Amino acid sequence: MLGASGYTGLELTRILERHPRLEKPSLLRREASDGAADLAEIFPELSGNGGYPLRALSWPEVKRQGIELLFLATPHAASRALVPEAVAQGLRVIDLSGAWRLKEAQHRAIYSFQDADAVTAAELTSRAVYGLPELNGDRLASAHLVANPGCYATSVILALLPLLKSGLIDQERGIISDSKSGVSGAGKAPSSRTHFVSVADNLSAYSVFNHRHLGEMVEQLGLNDTQLTFTPHLLPIPRGILSTIYVHLKKAMKPAEVESCLRNFYGGKHWIRVFATPKLPELQFSLHTNYCDLGFCLAEDGQRLVLLSCLDNLLKGAAGQAVQNMNLMYGWGEREGLQ
Amino acid sequence: MLGASGYTGLELTRILERHPRLEKPSLLRREASDGAADLAEIFPELSGNGGYPLRALSWPEVKRQGIELLFLATPHAASRALVPEAVAQGLRVIDLSGAWRLKEAQHRAIYSFQDADAVTAAELTSRAVYGLPELNGDRLASAHLVANPGCYATSVILALLPLLKSGLIDQERGIISDSKSGVSGAGKAPSSRTHFVSVADNLSAYSVFNHRHLGEMVEQLGLNDTQLTFTPHLLPIPRGILSTIYVHLKKAMKPAEVESCLRNFYGGKHWIRVFATPKLPELQFSLHTNYCDLGFCLAEDGQRLVLLSCLDNLLKGAAGQAVQNMNLMYGWGEREGLQ
Amino acid sequence: MLGASGYTGLELTRILERHPRLEKPSLLRREASDGAADLAEIFPELSGNGGYPLRALSWPEVKRQGIELLFLATPHAASRALVPEAVAQGLRVIDLSGAWRLKEAQHRAIYSFQDADAVTAAELTSRAVYGLPELNGDRLASAHLVANPGCYATSVILALLPLLKSGLIDQERGIISDSKSGVSGAGKAPSSRTHFVSVADNLSAYSVFNHRHLGEMVEQLGLNDTQLTFTPHLLPIPRGILSTIYVHLKKAMKPAEVESCLRNFYGGKHWIRVFATPKLPELQFSLHTNYCDLGFCLAEDGQRLVLLSCLDNLLKGAAGQAVQNMNLMYGWGEREGLQ
Amino acid sequence: MLGASGYTGLELTRILERHPRLEKPSLLRREASDGAADLAEIFPELSGNGGYPLRALSWPEVKRQGIELLFLATPHAASRALVPEAVAQGLRVIDLSGAWRLKEAQHRAIYSFQDADAVTAAELTSRAVYGLPELNGDRLASAHLVANPGCYATSVILALLPLLKSGLIDQERGIISDSKSGVSGAGKAPSSRTHFVSVADNLSAYSVFNHRHLGEMVEQLGLNDTQLTFTPHLLPIPRGILSTIYVHLKKAMKPAEVESCLRNFYGGKHWIRVFATPKLPELQFSLHTNYCDLGFCLAEDGQRLVLLSCLDNLLKGAAGQAVQNMNLMYGWGEREGLQ
Repeated sequence: MLGASGYTGLELTRILERHPRLEKPSLLRREASDGAADLAEIFPELSGNGGYPLRALSWPEVKRQGIELLFLATPHAASRALVPEAVAQGLRVIDLSGAWRLKEAQHRAIYSFQDADAVTAAELTSRAVYGLPELNGDRLASAHLVANPGCYATSVILALLPLLKSGLIDQERGIISDSKSGVSGAGKAPSSRTHFVSVADNLSAYSVFNHRHLGEMVEQLGLNDTQLTFTPHLLPIPRGILSTIYVHLKKAMKPAEVESCLRNFYGGKHWIRVFATPKLPELQFSLHTNYCDLGFCLAEDGQRLVLLSCLDNLLKGAAGQAVQNMNLMYGWGEREGLQ
Repeated sequence: MLGASGYTGLELTRILERHPRLEKPSLLRREASDGAADLAEIFPELSGNGGYPLRALSWPEVKRQGIELLFLATPHAASRALVPEAVAQGLRVIDLSGAWRLKEAQHRAIYSFQDADAVTAAELTSRAVYGLPELNGDRLASAHLVANPGCYATSVILALLPLLKSGLIDQERGIISDSKSGVSGAGKAPSSRTHFVSVADNLSAYSVFNHRHLGEMVEQLGLNDTQLTFTPHLLPIPRGILSTIYVHLKKAMKPAEVESCLRNFYGGKHWIRVFATPKLPELQFSLHTNYCDLGFCLAEDGQRLVLLSCLDNLLKGAAGQAVQNMNLMYGWGEREGLQ
Repeated sequence: MLGASGYTGLELTRILERHPRLEKPSLLRREASDGAADLAEIFPELSGNGGYPLRALSWPEVKRQGIELLFLATPHAASRALVPEAVAQGLRVIDLSGAWRLKEAQHRAIYSFQDADAVTAAELTSRAVYGLPELNGDRLASAHLVANPGCYATSVILALLPLLKSGLIDQERGIISDSKSGVSGAGKAPSSRTHFVSVADNLSAYSVFNHRHLGEMVEQLGLNDTQLTFTPHLLPIPRGILSTIYVHLKKAMKPAEVESCLRNFYGGKHWIRVFATPKLPELQFSLHTNYCDLGFCLAEDGQRLVLLSCLDNLLKGAAGQAVQNMNLMYGWGEREGLQ
Repeated sequence: MLGASGYTGLELTRILERHPRLEKPSLLRREASDGAADLAEIFPELSGNGGYPLRALSWPEVKRQGIELLFLATPHAASRALVPEAVAQGLRVIDLSGAWRLKEAQHRAIYSFQDADAVTAAELTSRAVYGLPELNGDRLASAHLVANPGCYATSVILALLPLLKSGLIDQERGIISDSKSGVSGAGKAPSSRTHFVSVADNLSAYSVFNHRHLGEMVEQLGLNDTQLTFTPHLLPIPRGILSTIYVHLKKAMKPAEVESCLRNFYGGKHWIRVFATPKLPELQFSLHTNYCDLGFCLAEDGQRLVLLSCLDNLLKGAAGQAVQNMNLMYGWGEREGLQ
């Protein structure tokens, strides 16, 4: 894995080392000289377990070790540069950044990618599988490049898929996702925005109408850009996302019908839990798990529907989902290593 | 004041004792025998300031002391019973509960009031002024019964008033308020819902489509009951409300026009602060103040508008607003005692 | 297991169900009629995993199921009553309450036990093994009744054992443990003390000089009652304990000598991590693990020593340690089920 | 005031602008070109009150405005350089940094001051009054340079003064202060240490045996350097300090005697509140006030004493105390502007 020094990298390291199909993961870093020699220097919570050496990335060495699959928990610019190299080496890649998620150029524009080889980049973009296992599970077995979804995007897409795919939502009326995330979603780099005093006893909205994850959502949901309003907020907690999603149904439904729609869509999908009205998921329930919890409230008019979607941004929203994708790429059980 | 032992009562006590027009407030309780003899026994943070004796309510004694104005920070059932008595004694009353806010019976139904004297109750209901000073400021000078608004209602109504009154919002498309409140809004009584471990590292929605404050909002905004969707959430912080409100404008506007609409409506109103795009209010900015902070983001299409509204639920959402109402009832400056 | 509905019971349930040597645990409750039929009704975070039925305790049924070992996560009075019954049935018991930890009557007095059969109670008290595996690991294989230590006691005893057993501490000068715990240590019952608003933005000391865990500490450490001052504090976090412990060394030492003493004492003990000066353990590092993290700072005079001890009160301080004890009772690896 | 852009500067600005004896304070900054033109750009919570322009420091301009008193909320190196200039201009100065608090060179060494004019610096050091009003109140009227105490130091010194000055503490046995502070004490500069995710759900000790405030404490208390052990901890809250202080009394006392000692020492001092056993101060009680709250627990042996001391690090620990000092410098009431 490359990029273990972030919050996502830490979670991924922990899951991979406990995974029953794998040995302790090989941790790489981009340059030989910089930073810590062992991940436990950065995250002392890893102490006492035999060491997590960070080695400089070298393709010959990767080959020598017999590595088949590379996780990238690197910033999107780095991922955009590294993936062509890795694929050229014959590696399969699960990239956790936003580098390969977007099919449409107008959505990618927000990232300002600078591709050394535009043809290869375009080709990889078209081959990349958007790694939402509940949606694209059957495409993973043969995937060479998996673009692991954004945390917010996972939360919003999973809530909307069943009703949208069933044609029950009046898209013309607009869909709204009011989403709230813990601070680990903002990354580990210190800034005035992530200072404890700025976050504690606070709640703030940001990137309204222009958050990077919006493109993923509309592409995967088949919406046009004005049909989805997405407002992220920064919560005074370390981790977790709750999205409150507002849709208008084409015709009046009963709560039991909404519940059936969700349950049928996700039948057999272990990592989705549907809560039955009047029970509602709370952010806390999914923390430290790979679950995405879904629930809803339907107005008496039967048309105004509020969907709730909760997950742990570092697990189902990142590292856990990456491992779920790996399991499916290799034909293993979807739950392996994630209990 | 009656009901000083709750969070709102504590804040009200603190404001009143510092108010330049007033002496230390007289603190009453409903029965002679129960509970603490001094408010500092309940709130040790009040120690060292000469005592806050709690005396049993007795109308003759109230008269003897020359009390003119009674604040009720009591539960709504108690307020519903006490106000007729107090008014009969010739007192002016500011009631902080939901007992007298609602004009329409179908909204009041949620409270299940049991009125001893239905005629008087109906008459008081019709005379009660909804104490939102920015809306009803000119009716306060002559008011005898002021129904102090709910905290969520204040947050939502103040954000929507300017654009709704100007006829700019497409009400048919529906209005959504996704509101988030700190835990003091749930009151001081211990429950599994307010247990620290249930709230910390969590966020949860509750009372979706049927929160008590919804009636106030639609009545004061002149909406019908299906035009406003209101979803309250419990935040892991002690105090503060942020409402994220979604409206669709009848025709495309520019950000500067939205800003003008807000600024013009609240010109001269000290306790409303309008933030200019791209600056947005954050919950923290209004804590420990009587401000309601308003801001907004407008989509590129010029029609999808997100309004943000922040306030301190114990101040502008309760005790501070009550004192603002008192100031206007007596012709004093709106800011007195609230700096 | 009996008592699954508390925070400790939840953690224990989770560990036991993942334990490679065990099937899903049998969850019992004291009376047939009360409360939930399934633990997932109390803890919705358990949903989606096939159910956690709570069955009324019946000794014949326990026998029929072939249960050999009973975990009690019940209040101490219940444990005091149940253990004689369970032992009479031939069961081995790990009790997580304070019911069987104390050897000396003057320490037990604080619990006011009412034993139906004083002789049996005395006999069980003397046979009970204090379940601190790093101290009594060799007595667990034959133990029938294991008294699982208190969370604070575990934190303090583990920090002090190496230097005390080595005779390096000047006990006459007094030992002080200034300990801080998250709120789950106070239990799940709602109270004004555990109300979110009382705890957030706060820190408070309580039970100074008379906390129940003090007796365990002095008994296990071989101190007399005035040699240890213990001050617990309530932290505004859900879980975790940090103890800052002050001792005076008999003669001046060097940091490397202190470190050696700790490392030698705990050589081969997986669940103790010793941090080397100048690195210090932080409360966060041990959360969601079964580790007890130890570190220290030594003054320039070589005699004033500050020890730091961190653990997760629900794991190494309760459920994790109980499973560690079980592992040793059955001759399994100490780490099994606890990774 | 110079240095308004930090947390202390913000609090000081707020207090000064409400102070009945003063006009809105003049806010200065060290260089004309850097940063914001108005403090409300840095702290949006200041919006709506007419502006807080930040002007470049120029001594002629200071003179022209008739400024008599300068508050410095600057880093210690800046204060060390600026104070000689300011005093030369005939200004009185209250410096909130550590630049002028220490009389003894071995304590100052930790700051590594580089004085342009060592003679003047030495002379100012000897003239500087340590601005703890409860200790040095009578020296303030004539003071030209007041060194406002550190937040931890205020907390520890105020708790220990009464018993130490009365000769009741056995200093030879050693005194321990286990202190815990909110994050605003670490300043506003972002760092990995103040990142929300590092602080939330955590508690950590730091600078054990070598915190900068230790020198102030021993100097003001008349202790030698090995008699006081001071361990600061970082709490997951924005503000507030609680110190738990352990002393051994020379002879056994009764709780009422300890209480009398505290009360007598602080008789007439408004900003000290003594809590009577068994009531204990909690950190929360003093937040947003200028109080230092003191309480204690005495062991049954009558000699082991635990003192508790709570204050708001930004008020009694910084800006509030600075204003209290100003009040006494000008012969005003100690409480003015601080209610």
